[in-house]
Amino acid sequence: MNFSSKLLENAVAEFAKLPGVGPKTALRLVLHLLGQDKEEVQSFSDAMVKLRNEILFCSTCHNISDQPVCDICSSPKRDHGIICIVEDTRDVMAVENTDQFNGVYHVLGGLISPMDGVGPADLEIDSLIERVSRGDIKEVFFALSATMEGDTTIFYLNKRLKNFKLNISTIARGIAFGGELEYVDEITLGRSIATRVPYENSLSG
Amino acid sequence: MNFSSKLLENAVAEFAKLPGVGPKTALRLVLHLLGQDKEEVQSFSDAMVKLRNEILFCSTCHNISDQPVCDICSSPKRDHGIICIVEDTRDVMAVENTDQFNGVYHVLGGLISPMDGVGPADLEIDSLIERVSRGDIKEVFFALSATMEGDTTIFYLNKRLKNFKLNISTIARGIAFGGELEYVDEITLGRSIATRVPYENSLSG
Repeated sequence: MNFSSKLLENAVAEFAKLPGVGPKTALRLVLHLLGQDKEEVQSFSDAMVKLRNEILFCSTCHNISDQPVCDICSSPKRDHGIICIVEDTRDVMAVENTDQFNGVYHVLGGLISPMDGVGPADLEIDSLIERVSRGDIKEVFFALSATMEGDTTIFYLNKRLKNFKLNISTIARGIAFGGELEYVDEITLGRSIATRVPYENSLSG
Repeated sequence: MNFSSKLLENAVAEFAKLPGVGPKTALRLVLHLLGQDKEEVQSFSDAMVKLRNEILFCSTCHNISDQPVCDICSSPKRDHGIICIVEDTRDVMAVENTDQFNGVYHVLGGLISPMDGVGPADLEIDSLIERVSRGDIKEVFFALSATMEGDTTIFYLNKRLKNFKLNISTIARGIAFGGELEYVDEITLGRSIATRVPYENSLSG
């Protein structure tokens, strides 16, 4: 692109570093910012710098937090005997949005992926073992993506956790609510037949 | 969304103000920034603030520029007798990328759009008339979008410019190179038949 301004070119280059943002989208976003008041652009920029510089991670569950211990880990209303293991903060938000879980979380910070060079030592696994070994935990359940990386992580953690007295479970896999049978892939359909549940347990809500 | 951090929520809200960026995309982009070094986030933010605070607009053509007069307007290699009228800086970049134009530009800063409350007084029209009235301009051509707003703007400017001794033209409209005839809409096809050109003039390059 032929930029008429180095400042513009630089701003577009910074935006285009973001995932899924190409040069044309970056230019559109930068020109939008250029049309805003100076205060608004300043507050946009400040929000990013402040987030990056001041963010904390909960010392217990490793979720993003403003305090050393997050709201969920410090809440007396939550059941601290059940830990839901998730990949990142987005998954905490997804599970929280269901209103179906009142326990606490453990954020791994990724999934085991030899292809991407991510091994168990790169994830918050030792601190999970330590939490469990304190003995107050009755149940651990995995809410990880149904991918090769998710399954590998569950397999590894299950081995590390099976010597503790724990109920270990994973979120159910099967056809989604509203899903039409003819469009479901055969692995999902096959597994959901093999793991079929009593009718009474299958009702939503 | 249930955010575990006010800082995170604030950064996502700022990103979600950008056009075409919803809350989920905003969260993904913010979490990406959170994974970068502090220096990189600082340089991202600085680029935006610096652009907004230090950007200039060329006093002749009103294009975005780092200097009071832009590189194109101050270049002795350009033909200052031909003005290409465009909506914004993106269109300058698009025309420059073709390598087919060696004149100078005039950036209107928008198009006449009564629906959006944009009238002639909101655009850089008086300065265009002033440039033309100095008498050195031989040709003015419109490179505006083929929309209702583009056509309205051309109609208005043509009326204001027709008393000057000028060649006034617009970029050609017709089917795009590589376009398949059966998929061309009937207005474009009809007009491209009505304005058909001698074969020798139609070859690309």
